[in-house]
Amino acid sequence: MTRLTLASRLENLGTETAFAVSLAAADWAARGNRVFPFHLGDMNLPTPANVVAAMDRAIADGKTGYCAAAGIAPLREALAADVGARRGLEFGPANVVVQPGGKPVIGKFVQTVMEPGDEVLYPNPGYPIYESQIEYYGGTAVPYRYVETPTGFALDLDFLRASITPRTKALIYNDLQNPLSAESSRAEMEAVAQLAIEHDLWVLSDEAYFEMRYSGTSTSIASFPGMQERTVILYTFSKKFAMTGWRLGAAIAPVPLAEQIAKLNTNDESCTAHFVQWAGVEGITGDQSGSKALVDVLRTRRDAAVDGVNAIPGMHTARPEATFYLFVNVTGAMQAKGFDDVAEFATAALHETGVSFCTRRHFGRPQPGETEQYIRLAYSGIADTDITEALGLLGDWIRS
Amino acid sequence: MTRLTLASRLENLGTETAFAVSLAAADWAARGNRVFPFHLGDMNLPTPANVVAAMDRAIADGKTGYCAAAGIAPLREALAADVGARRGLEFGPANVVVQPGGKPVIGKFVQTVMEPGDEVLYPNPGYPIYESQIEYYGGTAVPYRYVETPTGFALDLDFLRASITPRTKALIYNDLQNPLSAESSRAEMEAVAQLAIEHDLWVLSDEAYFEMRYSGTSTSIASFPGMQERTVILYTFSKKFAMTGWRLGAAIAPVPLAEQIAKLNTNDESCTAHFVQWAGVEGITGDQSGSKALVDVLRTRRDAAVDGVNAIPGMHTARPEATFYLFVNVTGAMQAKGFDDVAEFATAALHETGVSFCTRRHFGRPQPGETEQYIRLAYSGIADTDITEALGLLGDWIRS
Repeated sequence: MTRLTLASRLENLGTETAFAVSLAAADWAARGNRVFPFHLGDMNLPTPANVVAAMDRAIADGKTGYCAAAGIAPLREALAADVGARRGLEFGPANVVVQPGGKPVIGKFVQTVMEPGDEVLYPNPGYPIYESQIEYYGGTAVPYRYVETPTGFALDLDFLRASITPRTKALIYNDLQNPLSAESSRAEMEAVAQLAIEHDLWVLSDEAYFEMRYSGTSTSIASFPGMQERTVILYTFSKKFAMTGWRLGAAIAPVPLAEQIAKLNTNDESCTAHFVQWAGVEGITGDQSGSKALVDVLRTRRDAAVDGVNAIPGMHTARPEATFYLFVNVTGAMQAKGFDDVAEFATAALHETGVSFCTRRHFGRPQPGETEQYIRLAYSGIADTDITEALGLLGDWIRS
Repeated sequence: MTRLTLASRLENLGTETAFAVSLAAADWAARGNRVFPFHLGDMNLPTPANVVAAMDRAIADGKTGYCAAAGIAPLREALAADVGARRGLEFGPANVVVQPGGKPVIGKFVQTVMEPGDEVLYPNPGYPIYESQIEYYGGTAVPYRYVETPTGFALDLDFLRASITPRTKALIYNDLQNPLSAESSRAEMEAVAQLAIEHDLWVLSDEAYFEMRYSGTSTSIASFPGMQERTVILYTFSKKFAMTGWRLGAAIAPVPLAEQIAKLNTNDESCTAHFVQWAGVEGITGDQSGSKALVDVLRTRRDAAVDGVNAIPGMHTARPEATFYLFVNVTGAMQAKGFDDVAEFATAALHETGVSFCTRRHFGRPQPGETEQYIRLAYSGIADTDITEALGLLGDWIRS
């Protein structure tokens, strides 16, 4: 018998199943078909020029060697000031641990606070890596859910409350949510905070879209009394500065957690790319016109996408004030076309119209009692005129 | 009782204790003293200009979005061809998983092959993260050792053989070793390979310095018959291209392991910085004169360091053909100055001469029976004239 086996922990490791959608879209395009990539949660917009220039200066200045595991001091200071000011909180550099992207914060949070056997509450539908990392490190991933309202989606607070047990150790919260674009009312956020305090839970607040909004201002759950000391904020440069492929983010955490997360950095990747961190300093402290221009472009795309969807019979969406996703109710459209299975609906849409998208199933395991059908349209990687054309084609197909 | 506790797994997480040496050196410099940073395993040399230019082109070309978790196809293809050709092996892109540095390969290898309770053999003195990651993921870190010879250090094969038990699952091997600069003879490497095959062990071959050598050619343990299918090669761009702060490396692995490591990438960091990967393509396939010039500079530094050390009474080192470290026997010098404790010796050397260095203790827990005293001098971040000056000062102090 060979000892050359793989470790059993890998059986508990999930993934982003949306990759299969990308493959199907690429395959369809390779066969000579036009594809509208609404499945990609990415941006086809350039990073602001001043951010790129700052990186070039850093390289010319020799910032190509190792730096501290927790990040360079100027970036930690800039993030502490900026993240704090936007949330009405005080942070210092010791609260900030730079990461190669926002995503690493999820696994590092889980490793830092969760024992094997602990339960962790997480949003479902939600970013699939929550579920994956909780289970990989031996915890029990306990989903909470949302209900559709006339203005979007609301958190099912009764369901959340009923899911808390003596084993619950932490709660993952993602306001301005992927894929729902749900934004909590102040009362809803306060109720979640209250539950966390009452049951003494650690909280991961995934704030990837905190500054990716078209109107209004965002609120952090960390800003409610009693929350800052139990909350790790996931911060990322990816959306605000069109830096998804740069891999730059940070954990903003109570100092004892920040120290452990920095120690994980030392073990996992030494540090985040040195000169990329200097680009981040410019992003935060430099000219903001590039970032504002990005939001303007995305607002136009949002409007094109919302208007296009709501013109299709049997589909509807609210007009979210943040993120670049629409979580579209397609129950009626699927019925009209005779589909029971949302994956089959997606494949047919790709082949009939070139419109490629993810479905509810790519955002966590479906929960009992779900009756409506949903797809997710990401409009951040498609020009507004193409969005209008694509959704026109989709509508023609539904009507046909 | 609060539930806001940290996870107990963190008690098993080690770190790089050399950080304390950096702090002490920075503190001494801040007080107005000149410091010669022999403690830093980093380079004060610029990345070749063609590599930087390739990155700039990639950014201008819009390579700022996400890419595949395992890396862009051109880099996987270039690495498969180059790593294979230099080792006399056949690899395809499916064997290559790009990483943000060489270091992530260590933890991902451990996660992929080791069950909790398994034993993993690792070199000691050696890179401290081996020990840390084995223990963090619940394994038992079993050290093997080296003996000093007239030409450097040789692996203690009898000790290694005697350390294998029915629980041994994997062996970590680091030819061209940090901190010893040890290079296995062909017979020694073959003996290690034979043990791995005989006991059916997975092997991590840390080849960070494979192309950082001054004469001769490197051999990979993966090139012995029966080894490729059980070996994961740690590849890094850090040394060859002076790219330590860029964070670019790769795991070269049997396909079933490569697939799992790519899945870990999806969970841990999404992907490695997109445009940095295009810089890597240029590094491997473009003009090599920059990399050759780096080696020429480092050879001059090596010679200055070796000559300087061997002129000091009670210190001696061989002249390694690879890496940029000297593991210096300082037993006689410590006796001459009346030191029993190598950490105290290092502190005194810093304060008396400005020469800052790590000691044996920064490279794994000391083992029973060690009688000689060693320090590690990294000469990669100091000009040759400064090396000569620094070791002259060190010698003057020892003689005084």
